[in-house]
Amino acid sequence: MQRRKSRKIKAGRLEIGDGSPISIESMTSSDTKNIEATIDQVRELRQAGCDIVRIAIYDEECIETIEALKRSTDIPLVADIHFDHRLAIASIEKGIDMVRINPGNIGKTEGVKRLVAAAKEREIPIRIGVNSGSISSEIIKLYGNTAKAMVESALGHIAILEDAGYNNILLSLKSSNVIKTVEACREISDLIEYPLHLGVTEAGTMLSGSVKSSVGIGALLLDGIGDTLRVSLTAPPVEEVKVGLEILRCLGLRKDNVEIISCPTCGRCRIDIIYITNVLKERFKDIKYPIKIAVMGCAVNGPGEAKEADLGIAGGQGKAVLFRRGQIVGTLPYDDIIDTLTAEVRRMAADGSGNNNTGIQ
Amino acid sequence: MQRRKSRKIKAGRLEIGDGSPISIESMTSSDTKNIEATIDQVRELRQAGCDIVRIAIYDEECIETIEALKRSTDIPLVADIHFDHRLAIASIEKGIDMVRINPGNIGKTEGVKRLVAAAKEREIPIRIGVNSGSISSEIIKLYGNTAKAMVESALGHIAILEDAGYNNILLSLKSSNVIKTVEACREISDLIEYPLHLGVTEAGTMLSGSVKSSVGIGALLLDGIGDTLRVSLTAPPVEEVKVGLEILRCLGLRKDNVEIISCPTCGRCRIDIIYITNVLKERFKDIKYPIKIAVMGCAVNGPGEAKEADLGIAGGQGKAVLFRRGQIVGTLPYDDIIDTLTAEVRRMAADGSGNNNTGIQ
Repeated sequence: MQRRKSRKIKAGRLEIGDGSPISIESMTSSDTKNIEATIDQVRELRQAGCDIVRIAIYDEECIETIEALKRSTDIPLVADIHFDHRLAIASIEKGIDMVRINPGNIGKTEGVKRLVAAAKEREIPIRIGVNSGSISSEIIKLYGNTAKAMVESALGHIAILEDAGYNNILLSLKSSNVIKTVEACREISDLIEYPLHLGVTEAGTMLSGSVKSSVGIGALLLDGIGDTLRVSLTAPPVEEVKVGLEILRCLGLRKDNVEIISCPTCGRCRIDIIYITNVLKERFKDIKYPIKIAVMGCAVNGPGEAKEADLGIAGGQGKAVLFRRGQIVGTLPYDDIIDTLTAEVRRMAADGSGNNNTGIQ
Repeated sequence: MQRRKSRKIKAGRLEIGDGSPISIESMTSSDTKNIEATIDQVRELRQAGCDIVRIAIYDEECIETIEALKRSTDIPLVADIHFDHRLAIASIEKGIDMVRINPGNIGKTEGVKRLVAAAKEREIPIRIGVNSGSISSEIIKLYGNTAKAMVESALGHIAILEDAGYNNILLSLKSSNVIKTVEACREISDLIEYPLHLGVTEAGTMLSGSVKSSVGIGALLLDGIGDTLRVSLTAPPVEEVKVGLEILRCLGLRKDNVEIISCPTCGRCRIDIIYITNVLKERFKDIKYPIKIAVMGCAVNGPGEAKEADLGIAGGQGKAVLFRRGQIVGTLPYDDIIDTLTAEVRRMAADGSGNNNTGIQ
């Protein structure tokens, strides 16, 4: 997968763009003024594998939370600000690592100039966040409610920053409509070199939001487009990180876990694949080493179908065959399946003998 | 979204290809010989919105289940068969609506000829199901373990059927690797006109399997590729149908439900969006009419961001504004939000005044 060429920006210690690992953003849902709750949520997100956390800064009191967070965590922080350039400047002064605004609605030219001066001084990137729902009526009049309108809106916001002498920019174009999101990002990706933050906005609840985000973000990543992403879910923010990680892993863009290939079970299956897989998933969740294991229902097709796995089992009546890279190497009684696989995987993780090859060869 | 031109085939009453609605397949996981359990599972799948159900036919006793199913349900049925062309012929004789085989491993030329004769007589389509794990060693030697090998394998199997004078064919190319699946389907879609069944095989447990399937199947559907699909999950089969429906809906390929656009909540939010959204989702699950509603956390951005919704609310402190297509039309006390939205949506569904426009304009 050839990745789109983009500029590199830096948010605190996190590099975004120009081939950097694709990072995952989430956003706190606690009231920003509740400092303790927000610190807890940021800690939880960081632990789940989040790379950068966004916080809504909606009035001056929220600025105190930025100070408290900067004292308590090293994860890069983004201030999400609407309408008021003074909040953006105050956030930068208190050490925020990025601001997300729309230059077209953050204040008059003078305000943008002041914001740019503050951002320049501390080398703080600005994310221009275009949402299809908040495009100016002038642009909608010209282009309708289309992907093209999102692109034109983005180009307009970029021009404001560039005219003010700034190009430390991250860009996002989001719609709650998956097709529009994909079209807008594909189109803009050929027109500019700024790194892109991907997401489908207001995607919905756990299941439909995960599907929408996976389809939209996944299609763009498959094109090589995208430098950082946020899965938007009406669910606890930590779930957004889990889905984001799965998207990156399934495209070989993050190789930091035990991947379990498991058959969907069918009328041939003689062992409880669902149970075994879920137990193994839980047991392996803290192993950060890339190993691919297979849990297959039948011995006839299992080992062949799961040839790419480092290790696997294929069920039979009351037992399973153990295989490595498609070759059967032994037979296990049913009750030993989980423990044997656990021991083998831990050994591989310890001695580095796994060789997960997610991604096309 | 321009759909790829494909031939039309028919499995029972279900049309696949040539612009037919994209159908959803799942597969029973009960032992096929357990007739009662299998009938129950097929009924459950049908109720969840499944269009066609596959059953593993692994020996002669399984054929009895086909007879029992044909007496109990009108949903089209596919027999999944490996190695033994006689089982395929027996399935066809007992009224199966499609068979899924690989002509290269279903028996010698004579067997394939007999199978084709039986399929021809009853106009039963044959799905050639190529899985990256079961490609012949000759092809792997030539092309490696690649998407190209999957394409060559598919072309080989097609040639066997065409040589036997048959072209009532559905085709699938699946890998547990998302990129390989997408590449193989993109490549073959330009080479043949047979309809394509999409899926990522052995995708894994609920979360990772849903993400993998959404990314792979979604990217292809966005290209206009695909005529029917199966989400493969190591989970109860009915979950596969739910994920499949969400994939189709988020691309505007199925418009049969209340779509809820809901913001992910953030530090600005003053109402319990997660709770409200989940209650509404449950209440609306049986409404088959396309309506788009929005549940947004803040009144400043909510109505604008959710302009495309037929109806929505945007939360404030202890209350919410009600809006239609981005225009605020009233204010609701917090405790009335759920019931008012429910009543409005039911009214719209009853009088046909919703106007969901998923999909690009």
